[in-house]
Amino acid sequence: MKREEVFNFSAGPSVLPRQALERAAAEMLNYNGSGMSVMEMSHRSAFFQEIFDSAKAKLKKALAVPDSHEILFLQGGASAQFSMVPLNLMEGGGADYAVTGHFANIAMKEAKKYGAVHVAADTLGGEQAYIPRQEELDLSDGAKYFYYCANNTIYGTAWNYVPRTAAPLVCDMSSEILSRPVDVAKFGVIFAGAQKNMAPAGLTVVIIDKALAGREAPYTPLVMSYKTMIEKDSMYNTPPCWCIYMLGLTLDWLESQGGVAGMEAIKHEKAAILYDIIDNSRLYKPSARREDRSDMNVTFRTGDADLDAAFAKEAQARGLMNLKGHRAVGGIRASLYNAQPMEGVQALAAYMKEFEAKHHV
Amino acid sequence: MKREEVFNFSAGPSVLPRQALERAAAEMLNYNGSGMSVMEMSHRSAFFQEIFDSAKAKLKKALAVPDSHEILFLQGGASAQFSMVPLNLMEGGGADYAVTGHFANIAMKEAKKYGAVHVAADTLGGEQAYIPRQEELDLSDGAKYFYYCANNTIYGTAWNYVPRTAAPLVCDMSSEILSRPVDVAKFGVIFAGAQKNMAPAGLTVVIIDKALAGREAPYTPLVMSYKTMIEKDSMYNTPPCWCIYMLGLTLDWLESQGGVAGMEAIKHEKAAILYDIIDNSRLYKPSARREDRSDMNVTFRTGDADLDAAFAKEAQARGLMNLKGHRAVGGIRASLYNAQPMEGVQALAAYMKEFEAKHHV
Repeated sequence: MKREEVFNFSAGPSVLPRQALERAAAEMLNYNGSGMSVMEMSHRSAFFQEIFDSAKAKLKKALAVPDSHEILFLQGGASAQFSMVPLNLMEGGGADYAVTGHFANIAMKEAKKYGAVHVAADTLGGEQAYIPRQEELDLSDGAKYFYYCANNTIYGTAWNYVPRTAAPLVCDMSSEILSRPVDVAKFGVIFAGAQKNMAPAGLTVVIIDKALAGREAPYTPLVMSYKTMIEKDSMYNTPPCWCIYMLGLTLDWLESQGGVAGMEAIKHEKAAILYDIIDNSRLYKPSARREDRSDMNVTFRTGDADLDAAFAKEAQARGLMNLKGHRAVGGIRASLYNAQPMEGVQALAAYMKEFEAKHHV
Repeated sequence: MKREEVFNFSAGPSVLPRQALERAAAEMLNYNGSGMSVMEMSHRSAFFQEIFDSAKAKLKKALAVPDSHEILFLQGGASAQFSMVPLNLMEGGGADYAVTGHFANIAMKEAKKYGAVHVAADTLGGEQAYIPRQEELDLSDGAKYFYYCANNTIYGTAWNYVPRTAAPLVCDMSSEILSRPVDVAKFGVIFAGAQKNMAPAGLTVVIIDKALAGREAPYTPLVMSYKTMIEKDSMYNTPPCWCIYMLGLTLDWLESQGGVAGMEAIKHEKAAILYDIIDNSRLYKPSARREDRSDMNVTFRTGDADLDAAFAKEAQARGLMNLKGHRAVGGIRASLYNAQPMEGVQALAAYMKEFEAKHHV
């Protein structure tokens, strides 16, 4: 089973650690002597309970989650959290939303169904993508929470600081979780779709301050009650078992790479290789403001949509996959999630230089 | 990678076709020459779109889904549908619920959050589990829909007829879908968690009459709008890609076994082997009324809880796994989903006879 040489720069679902995939393949028909695939196991079986508990313990360790917070393994993606957060936390009151990207904008609009939304910042629509500074945040009194998206996958921006607010922080960390240490105690709710840095699509990780649970609106769907899911340890109903298993395998790999600290050290190094080329280029222009750049999603453009398209197309022909920018903004995007190997980044860097030499006139 | 000889009678997640698992293992690191695992693929990529379209087309063919109906691949399990159905179909009115099992009961209670629920039948709490006859259904005027669960996994009962109602039929087919032909045109909504007859846990298949979409309550979470999911062909957000891929592999296997008609022929044969033993036994008593018995979940008991436990425990020692009845009702349960091989049923039958000879005094 030889793997062809391709590097996958998809923004998500995205590259997973090869070690995790190899182990999943090897254990596919017979997990740990059970005679069963993990995909066939009752979620109430001792075999699966051990997989579940172990994935949770590894995540707790990797992110140093304090005992005040509970880890939940849910379904529905970050999009389900866009509703679940206001359904559970708004209590008919209001909340502050920082709109710094496509998904934060959807979350903000969704919250309007459930209470009064105050836009604390809106950075969409400018020439260059950016993140508001602390002093630029327009915070409202009595907000039930402050919502932001830590890394804007489409725009290639990241909050390189944790905002200070009176209200509990609610953060969508889908595209940067496990890529740098985070002081979980500062957050009311952290959530993340698994399909970027953790596992295949179909699992949503939620880390919630238990003190915030139990305030859901009466019309909250039962699978969307944080309280119920905390009480049932995410097994109110059948959880996405295979994705939880894969998360465990990814976390084993993460541990072998020095954990979250190891990821943080390497992620900036990887991104800097590309940003250096962009900053010294006469062809490529960065899409995001320098201090707000994401190390996970490197966005740039040539200024010519046809040339951007040619860049992605020719890249694909040499095994550098999924470099086309999101349809909402165009341009070029290289996603450098945890499992993106340095060799992939170097191959892309070499290609970028070649492409510039060929196309910059 | 030798698979040990075990037979898995779990009620779900449950046994999958070995052919599907083997192919998944073989393609794990490099799907169809892509150089990527299916778990790593962008859901917007041509590779995944083909997997998605093909799984949908195979399901449409297997169940002969008419063009009036749309197939959706969602998340959240049947439990999410317990809310999604009333959120989308109740329109502030009422609905009829037939409560014939644990999950229908949960669905009925959940619907009360969203409108007036009328219990059309309640068969819980009796000596033997049973399904109401058509003439026993207490139907209300103006109900927006009639809800029932086709196969009650815990009780081992099945609706061996399709009820006639003025209101559209909404049916939870989680534990019998693809085990017998169904006239989809008769139904407003069919839904099924995948983890019994289709794929690993994490995928919910919904088949909906498109004419019923677009009536959701204003506070419906965005991932719970049938209309949105129909318009976006289930890709409003990232779908559970791996489970959809596995569904495709299961459907390939199903096709090779004669499709749904082939499954129907074999399922009754498999269940009859066990029911014959039970009916001729002085030790085992059937848990369900004869004409309402499920071919998917065969439930019985000895009348002695300790002996039931011993039955399941000794079975496990010889590789017959997960025979313990659900904690809500006790007893013994053997789930004979599509992928349960005849050899498994025969091994269980032999064990049942041996156990009776040993324990019936």
